[in-house]
Amino acid sequence: MTAPFVIIGGDAAGMSAAAKLKREQPDAEVIVFERGPHISYSACGMPYWIGGVIPSDRQLVILTPEVARKRRGIDVRIFHEVTRIDPAGHTVYGRRTDTGEQFSQPYAKLAIATGARAAKPPIRGVDLPGVFTLRSLSDGQRIHAYIADHAPKRAVVIGGGYIGVEMVEALRNLSMEVHLVELLPQIMPNFDPEMAEPVAAHIVEKGVAVRTGLKVEAIEQTGDSLRVLTNAADGSIDADLVIVATGVQPNAELAAAAGLQLSVAGAIQVDAAMRTSDPDIYAAGDCVAHYHLVLEEPAWIPLATSANKGGRIAGDNMAGGQETFPGILGSAVVKVFDYTMATTGITESEARRSNRFGRDGEFVGSAVIENPDKAGYWPGAETLTVKLVFDRRNGRVLGGQLVGKAGVNKRIDIIATAITARMTVTDIGLLDLSYAPPYSPTYDPIQIAANVAQRDLLPAQAAQPAKH
Amino acid sequence: MTAPFVIIGGDAAGMSAAAKLKREQPDAEVIVFERGPHISYSACGMPYWIGGVIPSDRQLVILTPEVARKRRGIDVRIFHEVTRIDPAGHTVYGRRTDTGEQFSQPYAKLAIATGARAAKPPIRGVDLPGVFTLRSLSDGQRIHAYIADHAPKRAVVIGGGYIGVEMVEALRNLSMEVHLVELLPQIMPNFDPEMAEPVAAHIVEKGVAVRTGLKVEAIEQTGDSLRVLTNAADGSIDADLVIVATGVQPNAELAAAAGLQLSVAGAIQVDAAMRTSDPDIYAAGDCVAHYHLVLEEPAWIPLATSANKGGRIAGDNMAGGQETFPGILGSAVVKVFDYTMATTGITESEARRSNRFGRDGEFVGSAVIENPDKAGYWPGAETLTVKLVFDRRNGRVLGGQLVGKAGVNKRIDIIATAITARMTVTDIGLLDLSYAPPYSPTYDPIQIAANVAQRDLLPAQAAQPAKH
Repeated sequence: MTAPFVIIGGDAAGMSAAAKLKREQPDAEVIVFERGPHISYSACGMPYWIGGVIPSDRQLVILTPEVARKRRGIDVRIFHEVTRIDPAGHTVYGRRTDTGEQFSQPYAKLAIATGARAAKPPIRGVDLPGVFTLRSLSDGQRIHAYIADHAPKRAVVIGGGYIGVEMVEALRNLSMEVHLVELLPQIMPNFDPEMAEPVAAHIVEKGVAVRTGLKVEAIEQTGDSLRVLTNAADGSIDADLVIVATGVQPNAELAAAAGLQLSVAGAIQVDAAMRTSDPDIYAAGDCVAHYHLVLEEPAWIPLATSANKGGRIAGDNMAGGQETFPGILGSAVVKVFDYTMATTGITESEARRSNRFGRDGEFVGSAVIENPDKAGYWPGAETLTVKLVFDRRNGRVLGGQLVGKAGVNKRIDIIATAITARMTVTDIGLLDLSYAPPYSPTYDPIQIAANVAQRDLLPAQAAQPAKH
Repeated sequence: MTAPFVIIGGDAAGMSAAAKLKREQPDAEVIVFERGPHISYSACGMPYWIGGVIPSDRQLVILTPEVARKRRGIDVRIFHEVTRIDPAGHTVYGRRTDTGEQFSQPYAKLAIATGARAAKPPIRGVDLPGVFTLRSLSDGQRIHAYIADHAPKRAVVIGGGYIGVEMVEALRNLSMEVHLVELLPQIMPNFDPEMAEPVAAHIVEKGVAVRTGLKVEAIEQTGDSLRVLTNAADGSIDADLVIVATGVQPNAELAAAAGLQLSVAGAIQVDAAMRTSDPDIYAAGDCVAHYHLVLEEPAWIPLATSANKGGRIAGDNMAGGQETFPGILGSAVVKVFDYTMATTGITESEARRSNRFGRDGEFVGSAVIENPDKAGYWPGAETLTVKLVFDRRNGRVLGGQLVGKAGVNKRIDIIATAITARMTVTDIGLLDLSYAPPYSPTYDPIQIAANVAQRDLLPAQAAQPAKH
């Protein structure tokens, strides 16, 4: 009898790999070791449960261990933490997090889906009661319970990225007084400053105190409440609840200890088949670096979308398939009160920092336009801001950003698709996109931006040869 | 002194050509002959003005002759109908529609933007008072005035395409009793039957009598009202207002009389530079056939989007530029009460009728899925139906259709972009599209359809080589 397929981690990536393995080889034995109590939940939905938009955390659970076992035949073992991989011996070792019992398990092929964890800043007080990170469903449940038990009135959110701004909105929905503190000069550093600024202003409009360029130095307990100390003279903020949303880091220690190659940001290196440097070990999800389609090198951008796809492809290849993962763009969309922000590819700032576009980024072009998202006369048309970043030498689109109160959703994915196809701004300007007054101007705002961008191409490339 | 650039027709295509000419050659003389009183208006907005969504028809006017003259330096001459082109003599001849005066004008290069006109069925009574087609702004104004003057209570709309369904909604908004009569077995023949059917049911829910497979044989005046006679025993319908929306035909007679090559459907033939068979005559807009990116042959699909782009490219080339028009997909979106329908590329029916995909279309694949448009738990998530049509031999996407109450808008354009890039269903399944619970499931519904489609590929093509 051959050894089973083993998967470390029951998150979206791990369960996608397991499900794909069972679809391809229904009789295969597939064991998933998950150190926590939950598998396969919607981490991205947690701010909306905490903020009361979604009534129950049960709605966030995509698959329970019971259903995975009974309906899909996947041997899910929760409370099982793998602590060591022996690649030579094709065996994993671990202990039960509930009973402390040791276990070992031989494998034919292994997948690592250990995900990422919240990166806490090394400051005093970050582990005090009332101070939380939000990463796992258990984290979310702790915050939810704390709010229910303590009815906090004042909150500080440290970190103005995706989770930070979503938690700001959630806590504001609960009528808390909310401060958002960001170390960098702008919130939402995945966007260029001029795109993030109107959203920051909107957050202020919603009654949130936004402080950028402010470093948190410590969190202190003061009687019944907390005090967040910063590097500013007027920068101490009293709070009943503190959310630390200062980023994440890959859980790659297990892979590193097994001698597997790491990549950027300490994430696990994989090839397009999601295979690590060991031919019998695959990895997927927030613990791996993916090939970036614009940077043309590995990048670590942990997102649910690539975790799901990467897991499925790991499973396919473990089962002897040949699917490959072409790469990522870091496409993302986020709701910030009445605004939607979306991004794909690289920002102008990233392009200028890169060494790929001339000295000091001299070949980086950018076009920013504002236009109604629908026919200008349509009731409820909203101003949409579109930014395209492109290579002025060949017109190739490097990134796109959208900000607005309507029309952002899914438009970013037109740009993502165009970038994947290595289209130029000229190509985008000539795409046959749909139009009707309730939905779009005759020229989609993306195309208006592309047409503006076209004027900034270097002369040799301003005209483009016919495709037929 | 050289002869000026001359453009026949002041619609979106003609004015796009004129504007591009003036941008490229600000000192050039550009004359636009328009036989009617209006230039450059939003024809697609007319049903919404008639239906009361948009308060004034002035909002539909994009550019007036005065503004075109004063601000853009375009010599717009309204009420000027060109009646003959002399290609050898580089001259156009015509008469004023207001005064009857004759005129002639030499040209250096000419653009024909004569558009299309409503195709009236050859039936008795189609010109009776109270019977209207809707194509020009003047048509719209006549209908609007007729409704204001006669307060019709019962309307029949003949033809269930884009204009037909939009007018059904407009007249229903005005509380009329509305019948929709369609000759074909289904409404919205640009969609496959199973996609159109739920929308037809929705129109019925909104209180409209929908009759398909019904041929209108005549319209009669009966006292104060009209009677629409059909081929059905129970098929005579009394009405106070009849809208004939049975399609359009290209205004290509002028071009044909000048000896220019015509293409499919009697539309004017142009190359990728929008040049006709005469090297000094260009054409653009609803009067021309465009290269179809999926059919890989000319097709006549008159839409505002390609009229604008084609006009701009004609202007660029007239000015000595080198831009080319890659082709069309017939991408379109339409609001039908609470539903949105969108399509791009070809339908399954069209693919099966074509001779490009094996005998009886044996290599035509299709995948239809239903999925929430947002995270399933998000309040207000709506069911979205996605259909992908593809070539089972190579996975190439041939078309897409979307129907739903939310999430349709702009998703179709992801498919349009993918088709333009000649992507396969596998490519679509692996696109890095954005995700957040308020906007999308983790796998976009388009990708869910693509993943279903992938299982139907013929074996040799089921796996796809890596791109990097």
